Amino acid sequence: MHSFGFTVLAQQGAARRGELRTAHGVVQTPAFMAVGTRGAVKAVTHRDLRDLGAEIILGNTYHLYLKPGDAAIARLGGLHRFIGWDGPILTDSGGYQIFSLADRRRITDAGAEFRSHLDGSKHLLTPESAADIQSRLGADIAMVLDECTAFPATPDVAARSLERTARWAARARTRHLAIAAGETDVVPSTPGQAQFGIVQGGVHEALRRVSAEATVAIGFEGYAIGGLSVGEPVDVMYDIVGRTTPHLPEAQPRYLMGTGMPDDLVESVARGIDMFDCVLPTRNARNGQLLTREGPLNIRNARYADDDAPVDAACRCYTCRHFSRAYLRHLASTGEMLGATLGSMHNLCFYLDIMEAMRKAIEFGSFEEFRQNFHRTFSRQPLTR
Amino acid sequence: MHSFGFTVLAQQGAARRGELRTAHGVVQTPAFMAVGTRGAVKAVTHRDLRDLGAEIILGNTYHLYLKPGDAAIARLGGLHRFIGWDGPILTDSGGYQIFSLADRRRITDAGAEFRSHLDGSKHLLTPESAADIQSRLGADIAMVLDECTAFPATPDVAARSLERTARWAARARTRHLAIAAGETDVVPSTPGQAQFGIVQGGVHEALRRVSAEATVAIGFEGYAIGGLSVGEPVDVMYDIVGRTTPHLPEAQPRYLMGTGMPDDLVESVARGIDMFDCVLPTRNARNGQLLTREGPLNIRNARYADDDAPVDAACRCYTCRHFSRAYLRHLASTGEMLGATLGSMHNLCFYLDIMEAMRKAIEFGSFEEFRQNFHRTFSRQPLTR
Repeated sequence: MHSFGFTVLAQQGAARRGELRTAHGVVQTPAFMAVGTRGAVKAVTHRDLRDLGAEIILGNTYHLYLKPGDAAIARLGGLHRFIGWDGPILTDSGGYQIFSLADRRRITDAGAEFRSHLDGSKHLLTPESAADIQSRLGADIAMVLDECTAFPATPDVAARSLERTARWAARARTRHLAIAAGETDVVPSTPGQAQFGIVQGGVHEALRRVSAEATVAIGFEGYAIGGLSVGEPVDVMYDIVGRTTPHLPEAQPRYLMGTGMPDDLVESVARGIDMFDCVLPTRNARNGQLLTREGPLNIRNARYADDDAPVDAACRCYTCRHFSRAYLRHLASTGEMLGATLGSMHNLCFYLDIMEAMRKAIEFGSFEEFRQNFHRTFSRQPLTR
Repeated sequence: MHSFGFTVLAQQGAARRGELRTAHGVVQTPAFMAVGTRGAVKAVTHRDLRDLGAEIILGNTYHLYLKPGDAAIARLGGLHRFIGWDGPILTDSGGYQIFSLADRRRITDAGAEFRSHLDGSKHLLTPESAADIQSRLGADIAMVLDECTAFPATPDVAARSLERTARWAARARTRHLAIAAGETDVVPSTPGQAQFGIVQGGVHEALRRVSAEATVAIGFEGYAIGGLSVGEPVDVMYDIVGRTTPHLPEAQPRYLMGTGMPDDLVESVARGIDMFDCVLPTRNARNGQLLTREGPLNIRNARYADDDAPVDAACRCYTCRHFSRAYLRHLASTGEMLGATLGSMHNLCFYLDIMEAMRKAIEFGSFEEFRQNFHRTFSRQPLTR
């Protein structure tokens, strides 16, 4: 069993090619994590995920805590064993979902009080309990509970929010270390769990720096940038990412949370990000939006009814090697689950292939060319087809 | 390319071990056909079907005719190419679905007039047009349009119904041969398509014999028994199957339509049936009913919340080799599509394994033992767990 570790293998500009080691295996970075909210990546079997090259998946603590519960999952041997995925898993802290509950939650210094979206039951998630839950789940990487600042936020609001996030981070770290040292009654489901801190600060460069420094001062195995992709213009997001990563340690992994579109991956790797997660590839697939090297298409469009071509002729995925746009349109328009499965596999393949291409490009020193080329053929464009 | 053919390789009592040859490959019989109503077996990818050992699937002419339409499928190269399944396919005639439309259809000697369940549009399906549509779809085996007698039916009603079915069968055969001879404007999507006749007659032994003789007199590549599993007691169904097969040619395949429960497969093979189709394994899986060698279980039941065991420890399927009842229950209770996929794969595996076990048993002369043993451990029992 490996203990947690990270090595930068190659670098070009700010872009890094690295390797993440966890108790459940190695992840090549830059890496994209498919989102398995409730312990399943929607509509895709684990072996199809593996076949696509997925090395790490993400689970949502909020959903798993409510159902089936961290205690049940711990009794069943932890999240890996419960869901039958023996590769690395990262869990978020549950914070982001709770902040999305709007009128069903109240944030205090103690933590986040909320009512379940399932049954209205009342819960309190604290920095400590978020650490406890994730230790029982047994993710390879746990996240601290943070307060995700809404956009737009004044510098004052953003400053108060990041100060709370920093206080919470210190408490979360203390608890995490106490669990690892066996000083609590929490039995970790995965030994050697890593914990990442989260940098907040809205779109204010100075606050991002303050948050980064405060978080790094506490000391984590890795650092995430949170509170982006929440409505700010995309160039502002890129700018904040580029101005935050220089304040994070070179030797540790950096994770941009909840982003994003394909070009966000490329632009963020260019600014020093190593890890990503996003529901877009699977959610969009269920809505019929499929990605191609010439831009996205909506497979429900009548123009594909007689189209015998694959979604993307250059794609290696099972879907593109065996099925036509016409068939995928038929599946989407008749509501067949297989349409969601084949579409999700394709979109995930598209994302994973971008990551692979970036890894190769950084190794070969051609990342800037890749980036320019990618930008020409696939920019963040509206869905026009 | 093989032309259509059937060989009985071994026999024990009335039970037959055979081989069906089609333009798209060979099928070992007794065979179970997974139902792919609209060109997709619900929630299961083709490669997972192959991996489970599925050799032939069924498509529903009614659904495919309405959407995307036989003309569209023909333009796209036929059903095999359209759905990306290169193995054998059987299509029904559409008759059964139309009879299920109740107040939306009217049957005359000309054919079946009906209104689409999708948009209310009016259609007429005749014995000839059902042959044309299936030729354009390009199934390896097409079925004649028949009138499915409801249960219960008086001998008079059943007699009139089977007479119409026989008249329709003669017209369907004439059309089928004309298409094959190039005497129509229909371009077959699969050369060498076989056509099966259908025996009706309700639960009246004498009428079944009349229907069988009339159908065999017309001459088809195979024969189906229709109008069973429509509400009659199960022992009556077994009895009618056993009294019908002796009137069907030894050298040709026999298909019991739309049946059934696992023990129906065994009891019908014991009475000389070679082919089956049924939606139960996939439909039940979507409802949480999973089959085991000790009987069915409902995976939504709270008793499985902490059950670390596979659905059936003796099962070879992907689901049973990797996932616990607890996880499957979690997927079912959270409505994750993956639950439908994993459950459908398991139930299909269960069905396909019964067929494989029967084939082996007939080869080795141990079919009667298998049957008695199967009956002891898995009889048509109510869902109690």
